[in-house]
Amino acid sequence: MEPKSLIIALFLLSLFFGSLSATPTRKIKARNPCKRLVFYFHDIIYNGKNSNNATSAMVGAPAWANTTIMAGQSHFGDLIVFDDPITLDNNLHSTPVGRAQGFYLYDRKDIFTAWMGFSFVFNSTQHKGSINFAGADPLMNKTRDISVVGGTGDFFMARGIATLMTDAFEGEVYFRLRVDIKLYECW
Amino acid sequence: MEPKSLIIALFLLSLFFGSLSATPTRKIKARNPCKRLVFYFHDIIYNGKNSNNATSAMVGAPAWANTTIMAGQSHFGDLIVFDDPITLDNNLHSTPVGRAQGFYLYDRKDIFTAWMGFSFVFNSTQHKGSINFAGADPLMNKTRDISVVGGTGDFFMARGIATLMTDAFEGEVYFRLRVDIKLYECW
Amino acid sequence: MEPKSLIIALFLLSLFFGSLSATPTRKIKARNPCKRLVFYFHDIIYNGKNSNNATSAMVGAPAWANTTIMAGQSHFGDLIVFDDPITLDNNLHSTPVGRAQGFYLYDRKDIFTAWMGFSFVFNSTQHKGSINFAGADPLMNKTRDISVVGGTGDFFMARGIATLMTDAFEGEVYFRLRVDIKLYECW
Repeated sequence: MEPKSLIIALFLLSLFFGSLSATPTRKIKARNPCKRLVFYFHDIIYNGKNSNNATSAMVGAPAWANTTIMAGQSHFGDLIVFDDPITLDNNLHSTPVGRAQGFYLYDRKDIFTAWMGFSFVFNSTQHKGSINFAGADPLMNKTRDISVVGGTGDFFMARGIATLMTDAFEGEVYFRLRVDIKLYECW
Repeated sequence: MEPKSLIIALFLLSLFFGSLSATPTRKIKARNPCKRLVFYFHDIIYNGKNSNNATSAMVGAPAWANTTIMAGQSHFGDLIVFDDPITLDNNLHSTPVGRAQGFYLYDRKDIFTAWMGFSFVFNSTQHKGSINFAGADPLMNKTRDISVVGGTGDFFMARGIATLMTDAFEGEVYFRLRVDIKLYECW
Repeated sequence: MEPKSLIIALFLLSLFFGSLSATPTRKIKARNPCKRLVFYFHDIIYNGKNSNNATSAMVGAPAWANTTIMAGQSHFGDLIVFDDPITLDNNLHSTPVGRAQGFYLYDRKDIFTAWMGFSFVFNSTQHKGSINFAGADPLMNKTRDISVVGGTGDFFMARGIATLMTDAFEGEVYFRLRVDIKLYECW
């Protein structure tokens, strides 16, 4: 290639690089997760007797029920608000690394299913910021996916999927969810 | 161009192709929908007498009302949980292809408006997975748009818009929504 | 560069431009906001006496409380539905430019925190469409971020962050939030 040819070629290529780098994006899109995190969270439902250590409470119920005892018909219509500790392992007594905060509501009469809107809120040396979730939780399935619809702080603009698994279940008082977060959009 | 020049040029170009293909993305972004789906869903509201075929129930209401009869002032404050059949046409008795699950709440005193958070949940040979929706529903408008904030399964990472249209309305017991889903981000 | 070389080089480059422009996207991704908007919204909570000018009402509460008076324990479990005026400045009596509609729920027993799902709904010459928000609101913090999970109309497919600041607070009857919306995905 003549020197002149090389200059022209490099100039043309620089137009590309220039136009690409002019988009000041740090977004990474990937079919494989760009970030993966696994947590557990623990929900202790208020039942009229455990006000000291309950982490959630029923705040809505259909006309045929009340907000103290879970409704019949697969708890259909019960709305629960929660502020649950997040741990790195499946031990309720491990030091929490954050809080899972939001709500779920039972939305089916014949089997147990729920709809959830909640956030993982972190404020530690390891993670600062929040991850926001929404979606259907057909909780009788061994695993089920909900959406990561956004994030803030360390999780700025995150999007992805969270795979939920019921890791333990004790009647209507305690359950523990394993949450396998796979982010496919990272900034 | 000398052979050597051509090799250099191709090499430089291959750097581009390489860097582009190194981003393992299958995301398609389009001003025209990359996927479009139309469904109907049917909401039969519990009114104290129809517990057998009701698909939704009021679970929250303001202090001046109760959860059996819709509140005055445009139902302001009424919160409804639903598990509604999704059909391909506008016939309530068609075979459901999925379930619409979540909640809506009436949020205005002078006219009817609602806010909705719900999912379409599919588990058939045609569609497996869920589409998650959120947004304001000014339901007196002929059509109105809400957001598709995420999806799972066949609708992995979907984003878009859903145009809602009230297709039928029978007092305070039944309504049918036509949902025209337009996805602009498909993976 | 020989004319022929130049033609080949331009042809190869055109393949690039072609493949890029074949993606009919108008999406802009930026580390700096592609759009920024600041609004205020005003929440007047129904307390049993102010039904005329209240813009929000409690519609869910835990078993130990009721929907007229805010619950103890940092209002844990109280669910509030709102339809609040949006203004450009911090004056409650300024002409509203839109409505903030949705819900928030208090979700912690020891300090005040909330979880919010709501929309800004605009229908003026300046803005038409909606912006949809979701996320945790640790409202004792001076500022806190929630997610913009989608939008419609002028805000079609928007994503970003909204920084909330409590601009005024009068007991349990009135508060005013400053919302600094920063969109990082614009179409």
